[in-house]
Amino acid sequence: MKTLTLYERFSRAFHDYPHLSKLVVLFTVSGGGLLAYADASPIGGPQGIVPAEAGNKKKRVVVLGTGWAGTSFLKNLENPDYNVQVVSPRNYFAFTPLLPSVTCGTVEARSIVEPIRNIVRKKNMDIRYWEAECFKIDAQNKKIYCRSTNNLNGKKEFIVEYDYLIVAMGARSNTFNIPGVEENCKFLKEVEDAQEIRRGVIDCFEKASLPNLSDEERKKILHFVVVGGGPTGVEFAAELHDFVNEDIVKLYPRVQELVKITLLEAADHILGMFDKRITEFAERKFKRDGIDVRTGSMVVKVSDKEIATKERSGEVSSIPYGMAVWSTGIGTRPVIRDFMQQIGQAKRRALATDEWLRVEGTDSIYALGDCATINQRKVMEDISAIFSKADKDNSGTLTAKEAREVISDICERYPQVELYLKNKKLSDIVDLLKESKKDVEKESIELNIEEFKSALSEVDSQMKNLPATAQVAAQQGAYLADCFNRMEECEKNPEGPLRFRGTGRHRFRPFRYKHFGQFAPLGGEQTAAQLPWDWVSIGHSSQWLWYSVYASKQVSWRTRTLVISDWTRRFIFGRDSSRI
Amino acid sequence: MKTLTLYERFSRAFHDYPHLSKLVVLFTVSGGGLLAYADASPIGGPQGIVPAEAGNKKKRVVVLGTGWAGTSFLKNLENPDYNVQVVSPRNYFAFTPLLPSVTCGTVEARSIVEPIRNIVRKKNMDIRYWEAECFKIDAQNKKIYCRSTNNLNGKKEFIVEYDYLIVAMGARSNTFNIPGVEENCKFLKEVEDAQEIRRGVIDCFEKASLPNLSDEERKKILHFVVVGGGPTGVEFAAELHDFVNEDIVKLYPRVQELVKITLLEAADHILGMFDKRITEFAERKFKRDGIDVRTGSMVVKVSDKEIATKERSGEVSSIPYGMAVWSTGIGTRPVIRDFMQQIGQAKRRALATDEWLRVEGTDSIYALGDCATINQRKVMEDISAIFSKADKDNSGTLTAKEAREVISDICERYPQVELYLKNKKLSDIVDLLKESKKDVEKESIELNIEEFKSALSEVDSQMKNLPATAQVAAQQGAYLADCFNRMEECEKNPEGPLRFRGTGRHRFRPFRYKHFGQFAPLGGEQTAAQLPWDWVSIGHSSQWLWYSVYASKQVSWRTRTLVISDWTRRFIFGRDSSRI
Repeated sequence: MKTLTLYERFSRAFHDYPHLSKLVVLFTVSGGGLLAYADASPIGGPQGIVPAEAGNKKKRVVVLGTGWAGTSFLKNLENPDYNVQVVSPRNYFAFTPLLPSVTCGTVEARSIVEPIRNIVRKKNMDIRYWEAECFKIDAQNKKIYCRSTNNLNGKKEFIVEYDYLIVAMGARSNTFNIPGVEENCKFLKEVEDAQEIRRGVIDCFEKASLPNLSDEERKKILHFVVVGGGPTGVEFAAELHDFVNEDIVKLYPRVQELVKITLLEAADHILGMFDKRITEFAERKFKRDGIDVRTGSMVVKVSDKEIATKERSGEVSSIPYGMAVWSTGIGTRPVIRDFMQQIGQAKRRALATDEWLRVEGTDSIYALGDCATINQRKVMEDISAIFSKADKDNSGTLTAKEAREVISDICERYPQVELYLKNKKLSDIVDLLKESKKDVEKESIELNIEEFKSALSEVDSQMKNLPATAQVAAQQGAYLADCFNRMEECEKNPEGPLRFRGTGRHRFRPFRYKHFGQFAPLGGEQTAAQLPWDWVSIGHSSQWLWYSVYASKQVSWRTRTLVISDWTRRFIFGRDSSRI
Repeated sequence: MKTLTLYERFSRAFHDYPHLSKLVVLFTVSGGGLLAYADASPIGGPQGIVPAEAGNKKKRVVVLGTGWAGTSFLKNLENPDYNVQVVSPRNYFAFTPLLPSVTCGTVEARSIVEPIRNIVRKKNMDIRYWEAECFKIDAQNKKIYCRSTNNLNGKKEFIVEYDYLIVAMGARSNTFNIPGVEENCKFLKEVEDAQEIRRGVIDCFEKASLPNLSDEERKKILHFVVVGGGPTGVEFAAELHDFVNEDIVKLYPRVQELVKITLLEAADHILGMFDKRITEFAERKFKRDGIDVRTGSMVVKVSDKEIATKERSGEVSSIPYGMAVWSTGIGTRPVIRDFMQQIGQAKRRALATDEWLRVEGTDSIYALGDCATINQRKVMEDISAIFSKADKDNSGTLTAKEAREVISDICERYPQVELYLKNKKLSDIVDLLKESKKDVEKESIELNIEEFKSALSEVDSQMKNLPATAQVAAQQGAYLADCFNRMEECEKNPEGPLRFRGTGRHRFRPFRYKHFGQFAPLGGEQTAAQLPWDWVSIGHSSQWLWYSVYASKQVSWRTRTLVISDWTRRFIFGRDSSRI
């Protein structure tokens, strides 16, 4: 073996033990998984179906997608008793909350992505990745059909069989079938979208700087319209405003005055999902910054030159624009739509799952992230089952003691009950039951089924769908990985709540979302943060909180270092405006 | 005015005075121009022709191209008495010697580009930039026709008038009209090319990792063929080899053994323009690395699956490949070809200029960089004029004294004479003249025109074309800018050599290229360097010399910092393999 030079030895040390890199990173934020090599056994033969390896009795888990949900599942999966295959057209995980920063070059695209192969090369795990798109799920035969996305030598299809299928394919932008949106607007869901927007912005400035244009034409070219006042749209508008005012202004001084940014929102306020204080602050700040926020304005048509909107008053107006970014919400991917038709969910917006993330109507398919929605079980649907389960002595009436014995299972199975009690400031189920029987002593209360029904009649109002955010997807991935890690163990010792409509207990506790808060960067080093317990923070301090959280949440030390160095670079040199 | 926070003040200080950034840069390498703002007067109206500004008597200089030659010209132009317009489809300057590093992610694309607007916003200079492509030069009417490259709202044409035109449009890859090259090979001339190759390499690895392929098919997909053994081809092959062995191997362990890199070169050796020691070292190193170097192998056809080559022996063979990179030399751009036809240079390979970089057959057009070649004047063509100019007393014979008086002008006008004397180790022109008259005393020598002609008959053999390198282009740009800076001054006091065929002196000294050496990175932290005076250095030390020189030659502090931090990142984390 040849002698290694000092350089090589040093370089390898860093290479093989990424934890050493902590030494060079600015912050000591948490994160960074232990990495090791995948084994190097050869991959399957030339048959049409990916073969189960000889003598391999491992259950085959197939994961579709490498976004927040899929990657979180893979990162948290630790049980080596699965044969895992990952199918996704993107061979990397992207830290999507920083996509708006990529559109203006505050952060580079490559700084927010990490190869999925890097993430999954864990010790003792049997994980394979195929860069392909799943175009058909065959739940009947437990197969999926894949197509290589590779553009080298034509497309190639193959089939993957599974025992468990994890559907985490995310969603696509929703155009609400408004004519012209698909063709004329830019979207902001993928890394490529952000890169395209970046080139598009510079394009507009270069184009507006050309000779032989009237000021009217230049103004039109430099009119940036953002459709959708959600966090993504708002952050993009803020980024663009900063980019123009901090960087562009020096390079294109002659057209600076002609730039206009308009934000269209169909509802009454932007950032509708945030606290009112944040919404108001954002609207005031945007007004000060000269960003034209038009609420109650619905886009009805987009041509290559103009956007037609309908105002609340019914008035239809036309806005000439140079670039339009569409960010109004999410829609269903065709393969998911097709699968939903197969399993009788054709009318839904997303794949409905139970509280254990299992797709309704299937037994070995799980769905999580933006492509799924948890179909919470209503108490009222199960009220008779709950009653008879609770009524242990089959007396036909429920006593206070019986109710207390079953309440924790009820709250676990139907979280809306817990929420309802909390909102009503009741610490005891019996207090709720007593409401309809005010004249009876609390401890000697007895309810028949009708009275029980009426006491609980309001609880289902507390049910809420989870938002389609990275936070939800990541928690779902981690939850499901934990279930898979302990599958056998929990099969023997179920840890979930009572099965009210069956016998015994559920294997696992149902998924519960913990909300850690949400950020809305508003530009100019100001961020609004809505934290748990309705704590709201706005300004520079939240911006630094935002920096810290986003740095700490990076999936690898590499991306963490890159993102931080991008911020530093921007701080020192500004953003780059080369059109590449 | 609102109070600035500490952050803002600090940030602005860095922003407005980029020199401060020296503080944070690792090396104290030289470079970095003083930046200031361009004035913010409005740009011209909607007419078809870019208007001369009212009352503006400044000479209009139009620069075509923002590569090495054009950018070097713009950086060095200091005379504010010109109205300068730059036309180029690329709104940035790219540090092309690092393009091979971009193909594998050793350096990021954005780290080697700098917006041209950033480079030209100099104090007191009237420089405009149009992002457009010149598609026709009308030398007769001193106009150029431009087309906006912008893809937003269709193409738009406009006309720019000039007093001086600087053609620095570079060249395109030369396919030698070999069938299939254009369609199936990747090139390596532009930043986009390098990015495409990077995606292509990862594509091949992902594709080869898919199930359902035979090893034969995988081998084909992972066969990378580089055509052309010049510095670019060799460096790309070396980079690819490093990428595969240092990074890819960890992420795609199952296909690692199937990778093959082949380098095809039509000549007898790779790196033909370098010293023999370097060529041999490179060939030995590539052999050790497992790179298949096939010299004497000429590509005759490329299909989407195979490359057909003809060996020196006449044998034709077919090589299946996954990706082919074509890097064999440069060809003429269509607009230049069209212009050459206009001015009677149809048969040439590049725009012929005189030693002052003025295009032959025109009076106000200059050409430099890869699109031009200096048509050196032969001594033999002017020999009568030289003789009669030297023969001051019109005696019909040249004395030793007369020859000595004129020799410095001759050497300046005809550098081949100086080279010839140097090679012959003659310090005195009279020693050369004496060769034909051995019996005569040196100081009393007298030659008639025929004898003079015969004495100088061999000197033109010393004429050499300059290589098409960044170094030549940059020196030409700086030279021409210097001429433009001192145009008026030198009009009054010409500093050039005697006009042998006319009267008086040339305004300027002719362009002289100074060769500072050339690098050939060979991978594995080894670089070969050929320095002036035939000094050759190979190995790790040259690699560090390469790092220092390339860092110091960066066009801005921003790119310098980015390139250095990219190298650092690669050293710590390896190269990224996300397909974006």
